[in-house]
Amino acid sequence: MVLQINTKKEQEMIEITADVRKVVAEAGVEEGVVVVYVPHTTAGVTINENGDPDVVRDILTSLNKNFPVVDNYRHFEGNSHAHIKASLMGSSCLVPIEGGRMQLGRWQGIYFCEFDGPRRRSVLVNVYRAK
Amino acid sequence: MVLQINTKKEQEMIEITADVRKVVAEAGVEEGVVVVYVPHTTAGVTINENGDPDVVRDILTSLNKNFPVVDNYRHFEGNSHAHIKASLMGSSCLVPIEGGRMQLGRWQGIYFCEFDGPRRRSVLVNVYRAK
Amino acid sequence: MVLQINTKKEQEMIEITADVRKVVAEAGVEEGVVVVYVPHTTAGVTINENGDPDVVRDILTSLNKNFPVVDNYRHFEGNSHAHIKASLMGSSCLVPIEGGRMQLGRWQGIYFCEFDGPRRRSVLVNVYRAK
Repeated sequence: MVLQINTKKEQEMIEITADVRKVVAEAGVEEGVVVVYVPHTTAGVTINENGDPDVVRDILTSLNKNFPVVDNYRHFEGNSHAHIKASLMGSSCLVPIEGGRMQLGRWQGIYFCEFDGPRRRSVLVNVYRAK
Repeated sequence: MVLQINTKKEQEMIEITADVRKVVAEAGVEEGVVVVYVPHTTAGVTINENGDPDVVRDILTSLNKNFPVVDNYRHFEGNSHAHIKASLMGSSCLVPIEGGRMQLGRWQGIYFCEFDGPRRRSVLVNVYRAK
Repeated sequence: MVLQINTKKEQEMIEITADVRKVVAEAGVEEGVVVVYVPHTTAGVTINENGDPDVVRDILTSLNKNFPVVDNYRHFEGNSHAHIKASLMGSSCLVPIEGGRMQLGRWQGIYFCEFDGPRRRSVLVNVYRAK
């Protein structure tokens, strides 16, 4: 299953937990794993708190402090910071499925991380059955 | 299988290799993969050297230098640094299994990373059979 | 399948996409996932842009700025920076396979990340069939 996301800002973390949960439910897999994969090089995916929106805001701010948008980069497109952040967050995440449900913790949400938007993005969600 | 861990410090990396190895052995899977999943947002999991304990100490120190405990964060709970580190280390890791054994390298150990302890934590360990 | 890599520099990112693609093709798996696993603690693996070589150069430079080779580390071998970077990039990555092909994005390449070379390194590439 491919999710389509239209990001709105240069940098933002967009929660996609409900979309992934829907794919898992439709797959009808009792035991297995769901893999969320981002086929881009200036975006990533991570799992973090979905209670207070300031958490993901602090994550973006803190990444920008350490890996600034403007720095002594050589890459001609001027978005090296986004490539670095993509590798730090990672291009995939996975969540175990048991009893037909993702085993996310109480405060965990799955976030698509846009680091060089706004753009039209894709996210691949695949459910693999155990055994 | 769910491992229960009582962390003792605010920040620490606790080796769980032996526990994961036990789950793999009991699963009796010859070829496949083991997935270690942390259902928390201020803790993570990573694979690194288990020879000299100064390695994980240096990892924690270095993360704190770049992502300090106290900074200009907005999240009201005051543990934004822990959320950031959780995403940097990641909420899961996996190790291939061949011949019934995890294919960890000679110096590799699996570490639960506590960034906002001490707390009672859970770790999900699932073994998936190939084919 | 085990790839052998002789790294040439202290730090470098070596693209291994073609090698991984070959393993996937030979596995003859239509639907599944390929897992690339690095059994070392001073090297990692990541997915990023393979168009402009300045991208991976900027990634290495930026990591070195934040996690310098020489710092106030305690680990006696003097390569703590490499251990930290290994955990930041991660010891594994995975790519979904559909229709017998890795679902890499247009600009994505798989990179072995050497942080403490030159050395002889191994990379484990395993293809898991869905269902």
